[in-house]
Amino acid sequence: MKTRFLGILFLSGLYVASGVGAAQSPNSAATEECLGCHAGLHPGIVEGWKKSRHAATTPGQAAAVEGLALKVTSRAIPEALKGVTVGCAECHTLRADAHQGSFDHNGANIHVVVSPKDCATCHTEEAQQYDRNLMAHAYGNLVDNPVYGMLMQAINNTPVFTKGKLTTEPANDLTKADSCLYCHGTKLEVKGTVTRDTEMGEMTFPILSGWPNEGSGRINLDGSKGSCSACHSRHEFSLEMARKPYTCKECHVGPDVPAYKVYEGSKHGNIFSTKQSSWNFKEVPWTLGKDFSAPTCAACHMSLLVNTEGKVVVRRSHEVKNRLPWRIFGIIYAHPHPREANLTPIRNKANLPLPTDFDGSFADPYLWNEQERKAAAGQMQAACLACHHQSWVDGFWLRFDNTLETTNRTILAATQILGEIWKRDLALGLEKKGNPFDEYIERVWSNGWLFYANSVRFSTAMGGGGDYGVFADGRYHLMKTVREMEDWLELRKGRRK
Amino acid sequence: MKTRFLGILFLSGLYVASGVGAAQSPNSAATEECLGCHAGLHPGIVEGWKKSRHAATTPGQAAAVEGLALKVTSRAIPEALKGVTVGCAECHTLRADAHQGSFDHNGANIHVVVSPKDCATCHTEEAQQYDRNLMAHAYGNLVDNPVYGMLMQAINNTPVFTKGKLTTEPANDLTKADSCLYCHGTKLEVKGTVTRDTEMGEMTFPILSGWPNEGSGRINLDGSKGSCSACHSRHEFSLEMARKPYTCKECHVGPDVPAYKVYEGSKHGNIFSTKQSSWNFKEVPWTLGKDFSAPTCAACHMSLLVNTEGKVVVRRSHEVKNRLPWRIFGIIYAHPHPREANLTPIRNKANLPLPTDFDGSFADPYLWNEQERKAAAGQMQAACLACHHQSWVDGFWLRFDNTLETTNRTILAATQILGEIWKRDLALGLEKKGNPFDEYIERVWSNGWLFYANSVRFSTAMGGGGDYGVFADGRYHLMKTVREMEDWLELRKGRRK
Amino acid sequence: MKTRFLGILFLSGLYVASGVGAAQSPNSAATEECLGCHAGLHPGIVEGWKKSRHAATTPGQAAAVEGLALKVTSRAIPEALKGVTVGCAECHTLRADAHQGSFDHNGANIHVVVSPKDCATCHTEEAQQYDRNLMAHAYGNLVDNPVYGMLMQAINNTPVFTKGKLTTEPANDLTKADSCLYCHGTKLEVKGTVTRDTEMGEMTFPILSGWPNEGSGRINLDGSKGSCSACHSRHEFSLEMARKPYTCKECHVGPDVPAYKVYEGSKHGNIFSTKQSSWNFKEVPWTLGKDFSAPTCAACHMSLLVNTEGKVVVRRSHEVKNRLPWRIFGIIYAHPHPREANLTPIRNKANLPLPTDFDGSFADPYLWNEQERKAAAGQMQAACLACHHQSWVDGFWLRFDNTLETTNRTILAATQILGEIWKRDLALGLEKKGNPFDEYIERVWSNGWLFYANSVRFSTAMGGGGDYGVFADGRYHLMKTVREMEDWLELRKGRRK
Repeated sequence: MKTRFLGILFLSGLYVASGVGAAQSPNSAATEECLGCHAGLHPGIVEGWKKSRHAATTPGQAAAVEGLALKVTSRAIPEALKGVTVGCAECHTLRADAHQGSFDHNGANIHVVVSPKDCATCHTEEAQQYDRNLMAHAYGNLVDNPVYGMLMQAINNTPVFTKGKLTTEPANDLTKADSCLYCHGTKLEVKGTVTRDTEMGEMTFPILSGWPNEGSGRINLDGSKGSCSACHSRHEFSLEMARKPYTCKECHVGPDVPAYKVYEGSKHGNIFSTKQSSWNFKEVPWTLGKDFSAPTCAACHMSLLVNTEGKVVVRRSHEVKNRLPWRIFGIIYAHPHPREANLTPIRNKANLPLPTDFDGSFADPYLWNEQERKAAAGQMQAACLACHHQSWVDGFWLRFDNTLETTNRTILAATQILGEIWKRDLALGLEKKGNPFDEYIERVWSNGWLFYANSVRFSTAMGGGGDYGVFADGRYHLMKTVREMEDWLELRKGRRK
Repeated sequence: MKTRFLGILFLSGLYVASGVGAAQSPNSAATEECLGCHAGLHPGIVEGWKKSRHAATTPGQAAAVEGLALKVTSRAIPEALKGVTVGCAECHTLRADAHQGSFDHNGANIHVVVSPKDCATCHTEEAQQYDRNLMAHAYGNLVDNPVYGMLMQAINNTPVFTKGKLTTEPANDLTKADSCLYCHGTKLEVKGTVTRDTEMGEMTFPILSGWPNEGSGRINLDGSKGSCSACHSRHEFSLEMARKPYTCKECHVGPDVPAYKVYEGSKHGNIFSTKQSSWNFKEVPWTLGKDFSAPTCAACHMSLLVNTEGKVVVRRSHEVKNRLPWRIFGIIYAHPHPREANLTPIRNKANLPLPTDFDGSFADPYLWNEQERKAAAGQMQAACLACHHQSWVDGFWLRFDNTLETTNRTILAATQILGEIWKRDLALGLEKKGNPFDEYIERVWSNGWLFYANSVRFSTAMGGGGDYGVFADGRYHLMKTVREMEDWLELRKGRRK
Repeated sequence: MKTRFLGILFLSGLYVASGVGAAQSPNSAATEECLGCHAGLHPGIVEGWKKSRHAATTPGQAAAVEGLALKVTSRAIPEALKGVTVGCAECHTLRADAHQGSFDHNGANIHVVVSPKDCATCHTEEAQQYDRNLMAHAYGNLVDNPVYGMLMQAINNTPVFTKGKLTTEPANDLTKADSCLYCHGTKLEVKGTVTRDTEMGEMTFPILSGWPNEGSGRINLDGSKGSCSACHSRHEFSLEMARKPYTCKECHVGPDVPAYKVYEGSKHGNIFSTKQSSWNFKEVPWTLGKDFSAPTCAACHMSLLVNTEGKVVVRRSHEVKNRLPWRIFGIIYAHPHPREANLTPIRNKANLPLPTDFDGSFADPYLWNEQERKAAAGQMQAACLACHHQSWVDGFWLRFDNTLETTNRTILAATQILGEIWKRDLALGLEKKGNPFDEYIERVWSNGWLFYANSVRFSTAMGGGGDYGVFADGRYHLMKTVREMEDWLELRKGRRK
């Protein structure tokens, strides 16, 4: 196969008639060069791509689509890309100079990690929206927040028991990448090069730290934030995948954000599970009732929906807070959704980088005000109303507001008990320079707001999902947590640590 | 669109040739009137209905079906309904006078909430059976039982921590509707009217409390009990949906009744998950082996099953206890199935409204006797025997009986430990006017019978499902619970609260 | 139907033209005889078989297949079997003399339980591989290990509370069969015979203890180990079923071995869930990228995979350790994979039958050495590399090694705390003849290594699955466990039991 490495006809505009997809749309010569070796080496990658829309059309054709079916929002696609499929070379050599660690690979200047800024070459609006999306900032919002930093330490550190005493050693980068940053995204860095003896002879590749990773807020080698492949899995980039709830589940299934589990147990989830095989997950725009009969995560939170008359019900957005009045996973209380995707400037009244105070009050200046919440709720309700009458929707939102209030009140009681515990020096809280998340009773408390209050809220938010609101991580456990804290305190009253 | 509001040709018998479904079966003029606006307003509802059998046939045609395929069991369908599809107007104006809060809507007397008594107009036997089903009585069986009332309070109340002391405030109706009553059903009530400025001009609608709700024991505005749409989801009312386990999962997925989770992990669930795409979920009667190769929830508990020679294996019933010798989710012990669906008259020997005593003995007069249990088991086993030899079935039922006995014995030990705790005034039990479910150690105890004993029983009941019988909420956790109670008591011996 | 019982033309080689599957392949006369009654009696069994490959081909035809598509690996199929379908009689009368409890059934010498040695008649290599597989030895590896015996007792025994004291009674055989042995397999034994009045008149059958069971390490009535139907569900024996993850889930879904749950939440699981309906699960060999675009359990652990050029990527093996360098569910630490499937000879340095010591050191002589681990990892990585570049795979394995090390270190700290607890006589450990698994604090400890450390390892092993590595039974809970043990000890310091 080595004889196939001639020179590189990179992005030459020279169309190649043979090869995959050629009947409809021509691959570039450079991409054909890639396919020559990689089809045999990485059949999973190449076959996936061959099933993709990227292999079946060209940016020029896609940009010519009119009306709501248009998916390519750039008005300035480079000429060299317009007439060829979106193949290996098109993405992995695009903006090569902007990426650290781009390297020579048989004459092509390659970068391994394609970033949202690369995708923005054709999908401009989506990339811009996503950059304003909380998820794009998931890395910095976590690691640059010293309070969350203490939570991460309390989870990831390694315990050491010496002479009857428990201490911890800091978690290393591999643990962090495998733990919180798997979803939040790692920070990629070039750490040198490695030369390998491959089937094609000796080759040199960059060594990347933080790799592999497809977290939603990955810091890329061109400095951009996010990973489109978090949801649009490489290399098929299938709309069907982004629209089905299994994608969201990758990060939203645990007790902290049990969105998928609650969805699956809801009426909507039942209808999806039962009927999905007869639905159309590929149509753009997506017609309510016709293409699908119950919403998936994407339908309510992101997709462009139209009614059977083709009228827009709600517009597409990759900035999900546009439809979210509240942020329901409490840290430590549910609160109005933050206005900006970068959360690091937020300060509560105690000057901590948190959206609420320990007494439950909100860091107002940084959060949606009532009018903004109403606008966001209106966006969401537009979808609700396509299948439900106003009185149904009103009844639902009344319960939703009630759940936010009552779960916040329950967490307030739990937090006050912990305050009493801290005051009595039975555990070491933030005021006395302790990590508020690391001791056993603090973990009981965090179970309350992180798992049980959240589960109740997600359950209500998805139109009810009885078990998740009660026995499956719901109110039964939330109140049990408060009672465990009471029990723990009562037993130790009068003691000191 | 306002010009389309002419007069209402309600149930006029005047067939309308144009419009959805008209080719096969005619919509009534009244339904066409509804569709005129709602197709655009509520595409999800209208498109769902268009895919339904209700849109494709008429009660007259359906009632003429002969043999086991007959689904319409009324022998007295009103003439006006016989010749038109079962459309919007047919259901939502039916028996309008019987429903509180029926209201004028463009000349039609509409009720929002269709009840089992409405459905009984055509599906008479099914509605009668369901009325004798425990699930139809799920509202009263819960809220009219003062002991269960204490459990609900211990779960739903809001805690308040003041001056170092924890108290609770009663849960409001919104919380109750979102919590237990989501599955058990709410009591619907008309709370006045609201006038809204709609796309069609000003319109007045009733305000309903307890709405929305599709709980299995909903108290409807005509006084009837239950919601057919709990399982036969509006507006497609698909047999496929009722037969697939995702419907049952809506209420039976939590650790209290982990039916779906256990099923999914069982051999039957594996076969369903793997092979369902090649099965026929629409055929009536349902042929074992041919239409499906492993049972779903419906197959064992409700459906009419025949063998490949068309011989009835087991008859359809919406009264599920017909096939259930035991009620395996213990309150607080597994016990013979109650004879009547209305459980409120039940009294145990201590005169509490419970099917068992705290010492494990049964409230015999209210429960199946041995002969009745044998008859119910026989109904269930008819289905088993279609795929399993008698020796297989016998071996299985031997284990099932053993599991009921051993889990009950384990709960007895746990309850005796709690008795000791109550006796020593370390917690406040029922005898001293305390809520037996609210303190921490009482919640540990209820974990035992409500989650772990139940999980073990469900696991055995579905032919084994190793993990759910052992490590996934099974025996491992059941025995750990007993040990935690022992540990808690040992530490506090000699103390008083 | 009784008139159909003539004499038995057992395995006569006389082909019967009529009956199921006859168009392509002839059933034996004996099988036709079986079908005559059982089609009506057990439609589930017969219809399942009719859909199977066994009903559509003959061993002779199957053995003639050339190349990688060959599934029948015997070179010595008995002549009598070569020309007929693999029907009822072929399996259930095969090697009848080798099976205890074979019985006369209308003239045929029948055995109920078909064993791997029966299947080996055609599938020789697979049966041999499976016999060297850990799963085939799951019964003995559990019940013949006295330490594991104590864990079983601590889980399965029935508690009794008398005079303020908690003791336990031994679990009976029915409980054991329903609990651990459901997956590990029971030991089948003939316990006499029973005569039943059947539709066909009086008939006598053997009574089997331990039946039904399809555990992976079942001890069969011919002395062989295992149950092919554990994964190849009777009587369709569908390749599709063995290749989909639902089969593995039957035993690998609980928190002890959360393989399925982690898979389902991983990127691979997302792609499977979304795209499986367009995949080909029947093709042999299985082509990466073409037949499927993400691995299932089988793809990584057992299946024969080829690339699109038909080149073998990895060979089929029913001996799964061939691709497993490590055994990641720690007992009590993750450790190099045992070399032999029979684990009973293993002794750690303390002479206990465990692969590791309580201080975390490995029982080296019995476990893969570094070179063997490298070979096994190489087998696994061959599949990885079909979709991922070397740098991706290297980055992943670096994290995997790190997770094994850090979780083992965390369990070491937990075990040292327990050691301190035992030393202070706050609980009764192994050294003082106590069961190390039965007391509350010991169960907290076993939660750590059995559930949480395992969940973290499975999460890493499947390329990350954020929630299972952190909040869903992951590091959050692992560290909480250590903190609970610390908290428990601190409270009791200075006490004696």
